[in-house]
Amino acid sequence: MFTKEQITRFRTDTPGCLQRIHLNNAGAALMPLPVSEAITNHIHLESEIGGYEAHAAKAENIQGFYKAVAKLINAQPHQVAYMTSATDAYSRALSSIDFKRGDVLLTTRNDYVSNQIAFIQLQKRFGVKIVRAADNADGEVDVGSVAKLMDVHRPKVVAVTHVPMNAGVVQPVEDIGRLCREKEIIYLVDGCQSAGQLAVDVASIQCDFFSVTMRKFLRGPRGAGFLYVSDRILESGLAPIFVDLHSANWIEANEYELTRSAQRFELWERSYALVEASRAAVEYALWAGPDNIEGRVKYLAGYLRDRLNALPGISIMDGGKIKSGIVGIHLANWEASAFKAALTKKNINSSLILYNSALLDLRAKGVDWLSRLSPHYYNTIEEIDTAVSVIEETLQL
Amino acid sequence: MFTKEQITRFRTDTPGCLQRIHLNNAGAALMPLPVSEAITNHIHLESEIGGYEAHAAKAENIQGFYKAVAKLINAQPHQVAYMTSATDAYSRALSSIDFKRGDVLLTTRNDYVSNQIAFIQLQKRFGVKIVRAADNADGEVDVGSVAKLMDVHRPKVVAVTHVPMNAGVVQPVEDIGRLCREKEIIYLVDGCQSAGQLAVDVASIQCDFFSVTMRKFLRGPRGAGFLYVSDRILESGLAPIFVDLHSANWIEANEYELTRSAQRFELWERSYALVEASRAAVEYALWAGPDNIEGRVKYLAGYLRDRLNALPGISIMDGGKIKSGIVGIHLANWEASAFKAALTKKNINSSLILYNSALLDLRAKGVDWLSRLSPHYYNTIEEIDTAVSVIEETLQL
Repeated sequence: MFTKEQITRFRTDTPGCLQRIHLNNAGAALMPLPVSEAITNHIHLESEIGGYEAHAAKAENIQGFYKAVAKLINAQPHQVAYMTSATDAYSRALSSIDFKRGDVLLTTRNDYVSNQIAFIQLQKRFGVKIVRAADNADGEVDVGSVAKLMDVHRPKVVAVTHVPMNAGVVQPVEDIGRLCREKEIIYLVDGCQSAGQLAVDVASIQCDFFSVTMRKFLRGPRGAGFLYVSDRILESGLAPIFVDLHSANWIEANEYELTRSAQRFELWERSYALVEASRAAVEYALWAGPDNIEGRVKYLAGYLRDRLNALPGISIMDGGKIKSGIVGIHLANWEASAFKAALTKKNINSSLILYNSALLDLRAKGVDWLSRLSPHYYNTIEEIDTAVSVIEETLQL
Repeated sequence: MFTKEQITRFRTDTPGCLQRIHLNNAGAALMPLPVSEAITNHIHLESEIGGYEAHAAKAENIQGFYKAVAKLINAQPHQVAYMTSATDAYSRALSSIDFKRGDVLLTTRNDYVSNQIAFIQLQKRFGVKIVRAADNADGEVDVGSVAKLMDVHRPKVVAVTHVPMNAGVVQPVEDIGRLCREKEIIYLVDGCQSAGQLAVDVASIQCDFFSVTMRKFLRGPRGAGFLYVSDRILESGLAPIFVDLHSANWIEANEYELTRSAQRFELWERSYALVEASRAAVEYALWAGPDNIEGRVKYLAGYLRDRLNALPGISIMDGGKIKSGIVGIHLANWEASAFKAALTKKNINSSLILYNSALLDLRAKGVDWLSRLSPHYYNTIEEIDTAVSVIEETLQL
């Protein structure tokens, strides 16, 4: 666990701590100063000497992005691609798979809404069949169900969201990874909500793709993310549906050569201010320590659940044997946006999970919205106590 | 034309003018202060109150982006999508077309390298046939050749780069647009190098898609762009290969509903700092006046060509009856990066066109690189005189 001095330091680095009790880290966390300053410094440089010229001047820092990400997830720099969002990363990964009519994609009931929509698009466009594994009594995907469906359907791809945004669950991604390797199935893990709150190791997950956003628990900028790509995929020659002059080299009128590294999944153009900020965010997480971060996030979220559990009129809707830092609650007598507004009025940042963004889960739970409270390691017990008091007062309105 | 006072004002707004003679506007132009300040202000707000919360606070400004772009290109706000780059825009547009084996894509020899690579990917993945129209004696695509190839091949898509990055050419996009409408062919125009230097009117081009970057002649941030989508396309129900919770609404396990506007082509996540900056850039261009900008860019580029033409040892490689602001020169006795470095040493920003980035054009011209000099409206005759003197001295080294 962190010392009191460390927490103070994290909060001093985080101007937003002075203004709000930020329990919306699963939406977008507060950036620490090294992240926001990386952006403003690079934009300043660009406006002084030019955009291409600033990129050339900072080429070494840019390489630092790949090194830092590789260290964070236990990968190699050549397996990392910079992306403009986790969804961008996820769709580029999916687009590299040459689906044929009748191919099966096996996923979970709690996979992220945008992934579900992407699967439906594969169904419409290429005739891919979507199969969803059952959940167990804890609300996690049932590994036995996954194994059985693998044998029945021989899926081309297995797709699992590591930490669903809506439910507190941490999915058993290592167990499923083992099955995928045994059966040689392409394995796609959405780590949008896990990297930065959990210590992530892609080698032990054994995935082929791992997609991440910068803005959530990694505390990076909006509009940035990354994609891990396994050597297996790189060596097999898979490439996203559209490549450009960066991901391929034009060698004849109708011929190109693919870039060898995971940069094959990137486009050439990007905001280097955001790349610089992403590097700063990952380096900050490494400096704070992923294991300690994971411990503190679980501790604070557990404390929040315990306190909320004692209040009447609130249902905690989180599944999972091991619970993530995402706390989802429902209040039967409240309308979603009114509840969120009541917290905002008291300077508490939260977010809402609406029905269409977690359709299968909310339908099964019999509710049409959740309030999502998601602490991070820089939050404090005092902030959570204040938030619980505000919720208690709000319930009495 | 602009008054002397206007030019002074533009330069006062552009800190980079103090440091460099920036003739790399076809790479990335210098941002004016309202653009860089839009980024730093929004990042500051995000770090104070949170990323989602800052977005909510600035929702009206964000809408202003769509309105400003619509005004710039003579479209409607609902036809505009925010993109992370022109290549991102272009590939999302292409990805919406349901290509079948044997479909023909008709393009030009001077279409942008990343587009050519995307066409090759369509060839490899879906069996699309690439046909390229011939150029006329001026180096523009020959409209007669386009018409003839339309009749022979009945292409599914015609793809034209409005202003090729390498050649000075402005392609006859209106003439080709007329043919596409007559024959009901999907028409994709890459406006990456045209918007911001030419006054663009998508209604008179009659295109279905028009893709643009912010960082070039629009003087916006890196990592941002936009896509225009015609009502014809929106009403036909085309959607990019991957949609998300923003471009579609998840309504049943295996069913979604597409967003009606061009936002169907967007992803949900983006940097709102870059959206704010993009709005500021487009508003700045509207304030300066697209017609006046076009006049001054052509005037300065024409002056630069005349001055360079008088120097021995330099070949101006630009085609086009009407020439763009992009001046491409070749120097037989120089190596590409050494020439660029010699200019950089004298504080002149330029860029290089290497062989593989304009394969067909450079092969036909018998050279393996070009130095590209691209003035913008905030440059001055004095700067161009200085640059020409430096080039003259460099040639004598």
